[in-house]
Amino acid sequence: MPYPETFTGFQVNGPETWTEFHKNEFQPKPFGDYDVDIKIEACGVCGSDVHTISGGWGEQHFPLAVGHEIIGTALRVGPKVTLIKEGQRVGVGAQSYSCLECRQCKNDNETYCQHQLDTYGAKWPDTGIISQGGYSSHVRTHEHWVFPIPEALPSTVAAPMLCAGLTAYSPLVRNGCGPGKKVGIVGLGGIGHLGVLFAKALGAETWAISRTHAKEADARKMGADGFLATSEKDWNKDHIMTFDLIVNTANSFEGFDLDAYLSLLDVHAKWVSVGLPEDTEGIKVRNQTFLKNGCFFGSSHLGSRKETLEMLQLAADKGVATWVEEVKISKENLAETLQKLHKNDVRYRFCLTGYEDEFGA
Amino acid sequence: MPYPETFTGFQVNGPETWTEFHKNEFQPKPFGDYDVDIKIEACGVCGSDVHTISGGWGEQHFPLAVGHEIIGTALRVGPKVTLIKEGQRVGVGAQSYSCLECRQCKNDNETYCQHQLDTYGAKWPDTGIISQGGYSSHVRTHEHWVFPIPEALPSTVAAPMLCAGLTAYSPLVRNGCGPGKKVGIVGLGGIGHLGVLFAKALGAETWAISRTHAKEADARKMGADGFLATSEKDWNKDHIMTFDLIVNTANSFEGFDLDAYLSLLDVHAKWVSVGLPEDTEGIKVRNQTFLKNGCFFGSSHLGSRKETLEMLQLAADKGVATWVEEVKISKENLAETLQKLHKNDVRYRFCLTGYEDEFGA
Repeated sequence: MPYPETFTGFQVNGPETWTEFHKNEFQPKPFGDYDVDIKIEACGVCGSDVHTISGGWGEQHFPLAVGHEIIGTALRVGPKVTLIKEGQRVGVGAQSYSCLECRQCKNDNETYCQHQLDTYGAKWPDTGIISQGGYSSHVRTHEHWVFPIPEALPSTVAAPMLCAGLTAYSPLVRNGCGPGKKVGIVGLGGIGHLGVLFAKALGAETWAISRTHAKEADARKMGADGFLATSEKDWNKDHIMTFDLIVNTANSFEGFDLDAYLSLLDVHAKWVSVGLPEDTEGIKVRNQTFLKNGCFFGSSHLGSRKETLEMLQLAADKGVATWVEEVKISKENLAETLQKLHKNDVRYRFCLTGYEDEFGA
Repeated sequence: MPYPETFTGFQVNGPETWTEFHKNEFQPKPFGDYDVDIKIEACGVCGSDVHTISGGWGEQHFPLAVGHEIIGTALRVGPKVTLIKEGQRVGVGAQSYSCLECRQCKNDNETYCQHQLDTYGAKWPDTGIISQGGYSSHVRTHEHWVFPIPEALPSTVAAPMLCAGLTAYSPLVRNGCGPGKKVGIVGLGGIGHLGVLFAKALGAETWAISRTHAKEADARKMGADGFLATSEKDWNKDHIMTFDLIVNTANSFEGFDLDAYLSLLDVHAKWVSVGLPEDTEGIKVRNQTFLKNGCFFGSSHLGSRKETLEMLQLAADKGVATWVEEVKISKENLAETLQKLHKNDVRYRFCLTGYEDEFGA
């Protein structure tokens, strides 16, 4: 494979024109001793991509190529790289840097490092270069955030696991999801459907919780043992204080009856929100909200390298398969795909392919 | 001691006249096989008493005698009582009933039983009688909620532990407070000062967190290792992600910069609110609020019988002593004391005494 001086990607110029993608060359950060250059072959399309380019999450550095569910081939590895070999099929998720020296980093909490940087849109220390994501020909990433992909996992299945999958998997394993536990997944989108798949693969009694029954058949096919539709009267009544954990993947608190959801939790059990709604309003809580069961409300941010590797192996071992709609990467397809995602018109994850056709072999 | 047919207590007729106490006779619930009749000798004055009679917590059953930090002597025990002996010095806290048969009850979570009833103001099953609290001559309580008091603890020191103490102690022990942990107590009132005392007795590095330095000298005398005043600029800066647990005893979220407080917590550490502010507004949270450290926000309700007994023994063993202002029980003193408490003019807990003078030997 030829080795490029610059990378090429589909960039957006700003939120006003977020559906217009421009194929541009860009300069990656200088190649470091621990870096891996990856020739991309697939990339999942994450809700974050839409939030970022459409301005929903506030100001960003433009022009910007998004995409952080990346699969490709390690083209070159730095002289100090030990975790990855040249030619290996590898993945990169939503995080691409942390200090690796602080207590959090040394404790498999690198996602909570105060110096963590995102795979795209982050200003790189010293150079000022803005990191560019996987809607591109290549990506250059420190080996700690590059993950070998088990052979059993097709690239388009593995790609969405690197952000959506990990986002669901980490709070599950960190909060005891497993045999004998009853676990709820709120919202059945990209993250939620992987939440159902992984909760089931981890051995928990898995319930999908959605506004209507529209996705029930799909949820059951994914392995859900039960399904609750929150638009129904008394939907929570038969399940009060029976859930050991609920992971909330919903992207908005609009019309959310939080008390009803939290009533499902057993004593001191946790509600972990992993979506990041664009609204700045949030939801009002009182101490009384948590009083009946002494439950806890919190968020979770991605997961560690260790968890990523365990998740991929679990998926390979148990045949966990993301439900993917494949889309060939191109200006036109990106515009259409991102707009569809903006309307939640996807079951359940878009994954970009056709990189060789677009960027060359 | 003579055995009364009816009990006598200081009742309030309603929120409009909450500072007027009337000495009335009232009928206790029928004496049950597991009941203990207690001749009261001391009772702590809890913030709940003010919230209840002044209408801050909404509608209540009046006339009502409040008070749920009760110490007295077991005058009579029911035929099936095994936990308490006649003549024993005992205490009663804020809870006086649960089913004792559900999973929560069998799991030392009786405070989260769906059938739990409060020591005062609760409608007693079957009889319709409204439970009356410790501003009274006697109280009749199921043995499960009657606790022998270790000899080393003076009655006025032990009384406030039965609500305020337990409210702080339970979330501390349930969330790992102990040697090697850094624990924060927000608010230095009745509950908060017992939080500092117990966190220290449990061996944690204990920090008091208050708006100003006004109570710092007291907090240090209670054993606080550190003190943070939240009205100071950058008060949280040197402590980001260093606390293993924070118990919030503040009675209001007014002017609360929640993000700054939560920034203190280590990864996945917990913020447990134990006060129950009167305001119905609450505080707005976003998923982003909890994202930087993946922390959790929740509440806690009292504690179990098991924890109550452990707490009292710890207090006896380590010499934990509530800071008490003693007040002789009388119409006039109750009016004055409750109004002082309403203004937070107490350091740090009022405790009613002089019961024999008022109600007879």
